[in-house]
Amino acid sequence: MTDNHARTEPLPILLLNGPNLNTLGVRQPEVYGSTTLAQIVDAAERRAADGGFGLRAAQTNHEGQMIDWIHEARGNVSGIIINPGGWTHTSVALADALVVPEVPIVEVHISNVAKREPFRHHSYVSPIAVGTIAGLGVAGYDYALQFLMEYVRRG
Amino acid sequence: MTDNHARTEPLPILLLNGPNLNTLGVRQPEVYGSTTLAQIVDAAERRAADGGFGLRAAQTNHEGQMIDWIHEARGNVSGIIINPGGWTHTSVALADALVVPEVPIVEVHISNVAKREPFRHHSYVSPIAVGTIAGLGVAGYDYALQFLMEYVRRG
Amino acid sequence: MTDNHARTEPLPILLLNGPNLNTLGVRQPEVYGSTTLAQIVDAAERRAADGGFGLRAAQTNHEGQMIDWIHEARGNVSGIIINPGGWTHTSVALADALVVPEVPIVEVHISNVAKREPFRHHSYVSPIAVGTIAGLGVAGYDYALQFLMEYVRRG
Amino acid sequence: MTDNHARTEPLPILLLNGPNLNTLGVRQPEVYGSTTLAQIVDAAERRAADGGFGLRAAQTNHEGQMIDWIHEARGNVSGIIINPGGWTHTSVALADALVVPEVPIVEVHISNVAKREPFRHHSYVSPIAVGTIAGLGVAGYDYALQFLMEYVRRG
Amino acid sequence: MTDNHARTEPLPILLLNGPNLNTLGVRQPEVYGSTTLAQIVDAAERRAADGGFGLRAAQTNHEGQMIDWIHEARGNVSGIIINPGGWTHTSVALADALVVPEVPIVEVHISNVAKREPFRHHSYVSPIAVGTIAGLGVAGYDYALQFLMEYVRRG
Amino acid sequence: MTDNHARTEPLPILLLNGPNLNTLGVRQPEVYGSTTLAQIVDAAERRAADGGFGLRAAQTNHEGQMIDWIHEARGNVSGIIINPGGWTHTSVALADALVVPEVPIVEVHISNVAKREPFRHHSYVSPIAVGTIAGLGVAGYDYALQFLMEYVRRG
Amino acid sequence: MTDNHARTEPLPILLLNGPNLNTLGVRQPEVYGSTTLAQIVDAAERRAADGGFGLRAAQTNHEGQMIDWIHEARGNVSGIIINPGGWTHTSVALADALVVPEVPIVEVHISNVAKREPFRHHSYVSPIAVGTIAGLGVAGYDYALQFLMEYVRRG
Amino acid sequence: MTDNHARTEPLPILLLNGPNLNTLGVRQPEVYGSTTLAQIVDAAERRAADGGFGLRAAQTNHEGQMIDWIHEARGNVSGIIINPGGWTHTSVALADALVVPEVPIVEVHISNVAKREPFRHHSYVSPIAVGTIAGLGVAGYDYALQFLMEYVRRG
Amino acid sequence: MTDNHARTEPLPILLLNGPNLNTLGVRQPEVYGSTTLAQIVDAAERRAADGGFGLRAAQTNHEGQMIDWIHEARGNVSGIIINPGGWTHTSVALADALVVPEVPIVEVHISNVAKREPFRHHSYVSPIAVGTIAGLGVAGYDYALQFLMEYVRRG
Amino acid sequence: MTDNHARTEPLPILLLNGPNLNTLGVRQPEVYGSTTLAQIVDAAERRAADGGFGLRAAQTNHEGQMIDWIHEARGNVSGIIINPGGWTHTSVALADALVVPEVPIVEVHISNVAKREPFRHHSYVSPIAVGTIAGLGVAGYDYALQFLMEYVRRG
Amino acid sequence: MTDNHARTEPLPILLLNGPNLNTLGVRQPEVYGSTTLAQIVDAAERRAADGGFGLRAAQTNHEGQMIDWIHEARGNVSGIIINPGGWTHTSVALADALVVPEVPIVEVHISNVAKREPFRHHSYVSPIAVGTIAGLGVAGYDYALQFLMEYVRRG
Amino acid sequence: MTDNHARTEPLPILLLNGPNLNTLGVRQPEVYGSTTLAQIVDAAERRAADGGFGLRAAQTNHEGQMIDWIHEARGNVSGIIINPGGWTHTSVALADALVVPEVPIVEVHISNVAKREPFRHHSYVSPIAVGTIAGLGVAGYDYALQFLMEYVRRG
Repeated sequence: MTDNHARTEPLPILLLNGPNLNTLGVRQPEVYGSTTLAQIVDAAERRAADGGFGLRAAQTNHEGQMIDWIHEARGNVSGIIINPGGWTHTSVALADALVVPEVPIVEVHISNVAKREPFRHHSYVSPIAVGTIAGLGVAGYDYALQFLMEYVRRG
Repeated sequence: MTDNHARTEPLPILLLNGPNLNTLGVRQPEVYGSTTLAQIVDAAERRAADGGFGLRAAQTNHEGQMIDWIHEARGNVSGIIINPGGWTHTSVALADALVVPEVPIVEVHISNVAKREPFRHHSYVSPIAVGTIAGLGVAGYDYALQFLMEYVRRG
Repeated sequence: MTDNHARTEPLPILLLNGPNLNTLGVRQPEVYGSTTLAQIVDAAERRAADGGFGLRAAQTNHEGQMIDWIHEARGNVSGIIINPGGWTHTSVALADALVVPEVPIVEVHISNVAKREPFRHHSYVSPIAVGTIAGLGVAGYDYALQFLMEYVRRG
Repeated sequence: MTDNHARTEPLPILLLNGPNLNTLGVRQPEVYGSTTLAQIVDAAERRAADGGFGLRAAQTNHEGQMIDWIHEARGNVSGIIINPGGWTHTSVALADALVVPEVPIVEVHISNVAKREPFRHHSYVSPIAVGTIAGLGVAGYDYALQFLMEYVRRG
Repeated sequence: MTDNHARTEPLPILLLNGPNLNTLGVRQPEVYGSTTLAQIVDAAERRAADGGFGLRAAQTNHEGQMIDWIHEARGNVSGIIINPGGWTHTSVALADALVVPEVPIVEVHISNVAKREPFRHHSYVSPIAVGTIAGLGVAGYDYALQFLMEYVRRG
Repeated sequence: MTDNHARTEPLPILLLNGPNLNTLGVRQPEVYGSTTLAQIVDAAERRAADGGFGLRAAQTNHEGQMIDWIHEARGNVSGIIINPGGWTHTSVALADALVVPEVPIVEVHISNVAKREPFRHHSYVSPIAVGTIAGLGVAGYDYALQFLMEYVRRG
Repeated sequence: MTDNHARTEPLPILLLNGPNLNTLGVRQPEVYGSTTLAQIVDAAERRAADGGFGLRAAQTNHEGQMIDWIHEARGNVSGIIINPGGWTHTSVALADALVVPEVPIVEVHISNVAKREPFRHHSYVSPIAVGTIAGLGVAGYDYALQFLMEYVRRG
Repeated sequence: MTDNHARTEPLPILLLNGPNLNTLGVRQPEVYGSTTLAQIVDAAERRAADGGFGLRAAQTNHEGQMIDWIHEARGNVSGIIINPGGWTHTSVALADALVVPEVPIVEVHISNVAKREPFRHHSYVSPIAVGTIAGLGVAGYDYALQFLMEYVRRG
Repeated sequence: MTDNHARTEPLPILLLNGPNLNTLGVRQPEVYGSTTLAQIVDAAERRAADGGFGLRAAQTNHEGQMIDWIHEARGNVSGIIINPGGWTHTSVALADALVVPEVPIVEVHISNVAKREPFRHHSYVSPIAVGTIAGLGVAGYDYALQFLMEYVRRG
Repeated sequence: MTDNHARTEPLPILLLNGPNLNTLGVRQPEVYGSTTLAQIVDAAERRAADGGFGLRAAQTNHEGQMIDWIHEARGNVSGIIINPGGWTHTSVALADALVVPEVPIVEVHISNVAKREPFRHHSYVSPIAVGTIAGLGVAGYDYALQFLMEYVRRG
Repeated sequence: MTDNHARTEPLPILLLNGPNLNTLGVRQPEVYGSTTLAQIVDAAERRAADGGFGLRAAQTNHEGQMIDWIHEARGNVSGIIINPGGWTHTSVALADALVVPEVPIVEVHISNVAKREPFRHHSYVSPIAVGTIAGLGVAGYDYALQFLMEYVRRG
Repeated sequence: MTDNHARTEPLPILLLNGPNLNTLGVRQPEVYGSTTLAQIVDAAERRAADGGFGLRAAQTNHEGQMIDWIHEARGNVSGIIINPGGWTHTSVALADALVVPEVPIVEVHISNVAKREPFRHHSYVSPIAVGTIAGLGVAGYDYALQFLMEYVRRG
């Protein structure tokens, strides 16, 4: 897990990306656009810094790794932004893990999942998130971050 | 339809709210919060002005009125933000209308529909929208507006 | 909206009829009987007066009009009797509106919907009503009114 | 079967209650209220007497007993009010029995079954009844009785 | 249970009728015909005697009674003919009981269940029977008996 | 409602178009073609006149308006041609209204709905119409009109 | 079509067997037994002759041939026994053909279809037949024939 | 295949009728009317001649024969009108064949299939046809022919 | 109901067995094993005595009897162990009854229902029980009893 | 049936193609490629000869013909390769026939059926085949043949 | 994998816990209780030692790690207790792995999954386990262990 | 990942095996045969070398590892053969990964999945593969390899 924040008050925001999102900018640019994950993380760090928050960002294709990170987030982050990728539709284990930290969660999808295959229309994560942004491209991460910083500050 | 914009370049953004959203701040505040629709429109006008856009805002409980407004938007707006309320899940006619203006559409839901009754998990609007924001409260309108202005400017 | 009541304590009962119920006595008398809506309203006014309540009655084929009336009922009526007609099975917007007044609701169907097409077996209104009367013909309105007056008096 | 009626013209009304309804007033009062079955029967006897009808009332947790009683009702009662309890959703045998007497039937549910588990949303009895009252508490029995007496008198 | 047979070799055939079949000849003659159950049993006794078999016949509206009889049949009958009536479609307990005697079973339905409501198209009994006769009226019992006697004799 | 007919014997034909059909020629010409609704009505008037019938034509995006018009048609028209647009798949209220006039109805769809989204494969109108024409473009209206005039003349 | 009957009063019975039934005695004897189709037809001819009926028997693996034969049966047979084989579950065309002769039909299945794959649990033929015999082996044909002769004689 | 046309420019129209349609005028006249297939073909020939087209007409109860004819139509006809009868709902092979000639196809049903059993509500042919006419009786063939001639002439 | 306990503190445990469980040791020993119900009850009595509890045990094939016993348990037992047999999957009435005593319930199945027919995979009892043991043979009763005694003692 | 083999040891392989596969190379070359069926059979004959097997190849659009051929294969072939075309998804009769010869069967589909309409995702043939090759174009036949020759040789 | 056992006869029991069970005592104590996994393992070791068995215990959030451990168990353990956590409902790979060791398996769930979301009502593990314990809290592990030791000893 | 190829033109083929396939030859030999994975890889290397291709082979029980390998394949392999094991039916993440390399994919299953549990009948991988081979045992890998080498060579 890349740790890009100086420990300050409040606790940092955790930005998680699931399987295949390391290939952003390469995989199906007609669906996901040409921005890379590194660029997304850079932009998020700047946005978080502007908001007075640190940002921890991590991506993995290993469900177990993701669950471990989420467990470690308990007590150490003030909120989570997660793009669960293909696990969105299949992983009860991931959704169960996201309850552990007891912090607000925002789910982000780069593409408009409602336009795609029916199996992408259900999310195990949505019911345990505060809300979901889908189809707004990489800008979705930015809005999720704005929202979460405001949400945390308001308590 | 309230017309709050001075005609400028680019064409204004249209902010539409469907049935029962006139009761925001009154109906089920534990679900929808205490902000009123007038406050949402005020905030949107300011945000749009900051972005160099006009804003037209309208709310109705009449599906036919909503469809008429959407038809009139053809050629007159640069994008649409819509919270279709209960029509989200039932109105093919509304979804068909939203194709007419041939402008980008962002769908907003104040509450997290994925947490509520199963009939709220399907949207006829999502497949013809660019994307959807749900569960982020009234802030969802603001992000939709930010996104749409940027989307229009980029062409 | 026909306003047939002298404002008294307690607040009046609102009797709402949805689409096609203006044709009662004409449409399919083998299904709906030969009593007209005017006769139903007359009988309801007498029953309400006997019970010390005013009665407001209204019918419309326009969903938006119905929703507007229901919103206006907030703070102005003590209970609602509604026969939602065909909207029973299709209108989330109507069911959402009925939550706004925060008064007890009784749903009435003249015909026995359980004997008819399967799409008539589900109601969006039932879960937000106190209860439902179906198949007892126009007498169903009378029992609904008796119930509601008693329910309101008991607090 | 308790036989509470003096044989008069017309034939008496039969009031049947199915499984667990002997526990009314005890079981889940937040769902079913605090009135006991004996009180319901008392009230029904008075209402029937006022209407010039006798009343036979019976409750059983034994489906076979219920079916036997319904068979015996053929030629001996002018109508049946039945709260089939849990059998509503599961007993084809009961619904088949209710056709035998060839008299009008009114189905009563104390609670609003539409608000409860999905398996309570279907009734085998409704399609062979004249109509159904649900969710109006114990008052539902009274309205069913009023309706049935009127229905029988009108022929 | 009426016991109409002199104990001879081979063991008698058991003819069981489930709920509401005591009303044969009375209930819905347009569906079930005008023959009474007593007449069916008489004819079956004669047919069995001609084939060198005894016949035990019983009918009940009580599922528990039916299950008790089926248990008692173990070791005492050579085969079972059963018209399970409404339990056909709903009673796992009955189907489980019919496995206990470890004798051949033939299922009979007087009416053509495939023409009736969809819930009558599934039988819990059919998969544990040798076979099924449906829609041939009361003659179905006779063919079932002929078959079973032949089946038992062949071993 | 535009009233284009001189009252003659027989009663005129009513041509109704539902939501979004005012945009014909503009909306998705690759699906619906380039003919406008005005051109369709013109052609229908000429065809009706040739057949000795008057024609009333109307379009609305308001379900309530459509239902009102259909009620008014009772006793005043000899048949109805309706393209219900998106309401085809969602409006029980509209289908119930179409029963009121007790005249023959022909349902027309310009596009081949069977080729499109699954939710367009079901019609609430078809079961109460005489028949349906789909996918033949605007010519469908003309055949519906020919059929209806012949159907009415034959009585 | 093999024509085994001398034309007498009444019209003969038609015994039809569908696809793969020519392989009886060869295909899966553990499911279908070891009797051949020729033996079934021989037995049926003797049974029919005893009952004063002629018998026409035919088997084909060609759906079109089967439909042609059924059409020709109109006016020429007094009843039809059919084992539709695999077409039972798939052929609307066959079921439609069986309505043409307007004579009573009995459906026979040698095996107990309720014990086999779920797709064998539905029959297009059952709803247009008088009744069905399944699982009684080749004896099912004999009972069907007995029934049909009696049914025809009673008129 | 009856070949009723003199080869002229343009290529003839092929009129195909599937299983049981040879019994038109005989089978279920309350559903299909009293016109015979020969009369339909005669009328179609006259209509085609008026439009300057030849007509080939054929009917079969053999799916294989129908498929063979459709293959032969490739390059030899300008369009196909088909009433697929019971195969409409069951034959993928037929629908696959209809793609081979690469000519426009119109599907005709004499009865209103939407009013009949649910299994008649789905068509494998509709998605590969230009459009469908259902419920307009034998006139449906005539409108299909008018449409197809116009469609072919326009190119 | 066999009453095997001396009334002591705490209230006894009630061990209930549903339909066909009287045949344990006889019916399908390959599924249910060779232990008889009497042996199970004996073992349970010893285990309960060791734990300082009395035990009441009862078995019936009559649903009504079972419901009556459960009602009588209210206030008289400290917990219930129930193997509902075939009623598990079909009896809403039984599940409703089990709520009446307001004591902890443990559901036991001797066989592994998840390995058997799909209709055995759903239980109406599980959602109102504390928990379920399935597939551990007759040892399941013993663990249920250990659990319940501990659960009651802890309060 | 074309019989291309000199009778040798072992028995020949039967290569069967179902409806519309005679149009290979013509129908939808973007789906099925440009190779003709004759070329496929030629290649298969050469491959079989190399493997020391004869090959019989046949194609038909007539289900009955296909079934007849499969019956005749019993005892005369050592294995079957079948591309059932559209019957794959609809013909129980064909699947039942394929059990008759009691030889190994390999199912081949030229196109990737999993990418196409949902009704093409189920095969009645797969469960009675040894295995299936789909989407590998005409090469699928070659691999099926290699497999089957090896499978037969190994016994 | 923690290896807590001295190799003795018989082979040790393997106690496996899946995703998120490392958070026991922390995550949702109202659902899962306050006992930690370490305490569960301690108790299990003592219970196993009392029974003369060793115990190996392991937990992981990595499906691949779990599968590797299960493979290694082949030949090295005498039975497996597994709480598969969220994988219960989603992992075919895990269920396939559990077949590899060919030892008895008991599935344990701490919470009553039948009371929770519908997606928790299905288990891929149950059909390949001997049995399942659910809802008995951490005591479920103890009963599973008692059962398994007895089961292994009996052979 | 074992890298068994000398880098040559063209790029090597990647042979991937998912969970539990390391146990081939050990797990359920009656389903999967007795060949080990090492033997499969050996055979594939020889076949590839004969075809002028290198081969990379890898197996893992860790989904994340599999996804990582697939990502690394982008630009480094000319095609992929994958047996996804249990992930076939459950892993959207894997299917999404397989799109990344933009090379042809062939899916192989050793057993005939169509004969097994219904949850094995759906594959997330099939729609993004060129084609699928199932049920042909380990020979399926060989045919997949032959196909892929030919497919790549043809471009």
